[in-house]
Amino acid sequence: MDHASPRAALADVVAIPVTPFGPDGGVDRDAYRALLGRLLDGGVRAVTPGGNTGEFYALTPDERRLVTELTVAYVGDRAAVLAGVGHDLPTAVAAARHARDAGAGMVMVHQPVHPYVSRDGWIDYHREIADAVPELGVVPYVRNPLLDGAAIARLGELCPNVIGVKYAVPDAARFGAVARDAGLERFVWIAGLAELYAPAYWAMGATGFTSGLVNVAPAVSLALRDALRGGDRAAAAEVWERIRPFEELRAADQSADNVTVVKEALDVLGVCRRDVRPPSRPLPEARRAEVAEIVKGWEI
Amino acid sequence: MDHASPRAALADVVAIPVTPFGPDGGVDRDAYRALLGRLLDGGVRAVTPGGNTGEFYALTPDERRLVTELTVAYVGDRAAVLAGVGHDLPTAVAAARHARDAGAGMVMVHQPVHPYVSRDGWIDYHREIADAVPELGVVPYVRNPLLDGAAIARLGELCPNVIGVKYAVPDAARFGAVARDAGLERFVWIAGLAELYAPAYWAMGATGFTSGLVNVAPAVSLALRDALRGGDRAAAAEVWERIRPFEELRAADQSADNVTVVKEALDVLGVCRRDVRPPSRPLPEARRAEVAEIVKGWEI
Repeated sequence: MDHASPRAALADVVAIPVTPFGPDGGVDRDAYRALLGRLLDGGVRAVTPGGNTGEFYALTPDERRLVTELTVAYVGDRAAVLAGVGHDLPTAVAAARHARDAGAGMVMVHQPVHPYVSRDGWIDYHREIADAVPELGVVPYVRNPLLDGAAIARLGELCPNVIGVKYAVPDAARFGAVARDAGLERFVWIAGLAELYAPAYWAMGATGFTSGLVNVAPAVSLALRDALRGGDRAAAAEVWERIRPFEELRAADQSADNVTVVKEALDVLGVCRRDVRPPSRPLPEARRAEVAEIVKGWEI
Repeated sequence: MDHASPRAALADVVAIPVTPFGPDGGVDRDAYRALLGRLLDGGVRAVTPGGNTGEFYALTPDERRLVTELTVAYVGDRAAVLAGVGHDLPTAVAAARHARDAGAGMVMVHQPVHPYVSRDGWIDYHREIADAVPELGVVPYVRNPLLDGAAIARLGELCPNVIGVKYAVPDAARFGAVARDAGLERFVWIAGLAELYAPAYWAMGATGFTSGLVNVAPAVSLALRDALRGGDRAAAAEVWERIRPFEELRAADQSADNVTVVKEALDVLGVCRRDVRPPSRPLPEARRAEVAEIVKGWEI
């Protein structure tokens, strides 16, 4: 496998598309394709179906496979597809193989749900998935501040196809330490906490960031990417200030409305319905105008 | 449905059995039955297959059903069975119905895995499960410190069969506030952080506690229960001191070895193999003696 191209795809805005639901509550395939079309036309080159913004843990096993298949079929060679996989190990391995068979080039491995994660067990878990799909790039999603760089380095020694890390601990210094201990060049480092943390992570060695906001405004996310790539701190700060109210709304109350706010904006824009699944819930009527007001200020 | 008996079962030691694995890596049915027999003979009257100590998130869907079926079949009417259910909502609802059909009297609903939990969405999630099995007692497992008593109270108004709450936030004052706001009498309050927190939670209104240690030493957990019921602080403190090194070993490193340590002790006792699944891993050889040494001090 030639890792050059998947690595380049990760050093970019990695879009986490929402999963639109239809009036019957099921996945709205047409709306999903329209959403992907908007992302691709907007310049997005890496897409993760089955991410948290896609309500991964609210999808049934069939639906998880469906969004991967829909994404690969629609995207073709216009973008890299990084399918989210997770749950118990046999389920995660089967999902990775399914993603490969469907035509995805990479998988993103959700942080294990199991509450008792040992350092060596973390390596075992990811290794088993990576070994099952040696043809695919593999990207662990790290949300645990205690996982150290040595564990990630060891996984990288065992599995050449682990090519990137999505790091999502809200501590840029810790990120810098972990990335250096694991290997700054060995992996592509993706800021996993999206736009608000991207500048700080970039300063510490990230070359890509994930985004849910990109569903709403691809140009805004790409403008931040360009500012960071160009080292233009003023331009990055301008984008940061512009999106801050939106992202803070998403982050409030332990991210209770993280996807809810994105889908509310997409509903306003006519891209898809606002419906989210439990344990999330659409915003109450009274709070919807707030989102519409914020988004109106962007050039979309 | 007569809630008197399930409520009484919850106001007790609620055992979370481990899931023993055989040399082939699969669920070891004979060892599991032997383990259950030990618990029942020891005086345990409430059992939760599919809890975190049972490595719920490392079991496949088939295995999750299997442990429920094995438990109900073996336990019969000697104890209440509270089956753990979780994941996406259709999967959780199907698991609750399966538990009912298998003969379980209650389900314990794992905290939603989905990272974006709104207060109202939390209610929606549990309500849908509770409404699907009105004949069963339902016990939410709360690990989120931000979930307030009003949300739990509302769920209780909507769903009469939500009869207990397993509360597992390491803050006894917060527990006391939440339990009062939700209804101290409306629900049976179960200390969800096991023996080390049980005395403090008891002081704030809990009348039961969950336990993983009970797999190793049923008499020790029941002695703590009796001391708490009898208001015998000295006796409770004696048990607490006795088990502290074992429980602290389980809690270290964000509970990395939580189940690992229990299974290590069970291996020493000849009850089942020490094998745990990724992302956990058995203790390295050098650390095993420590567990054996601790357990030797107990009268088992």
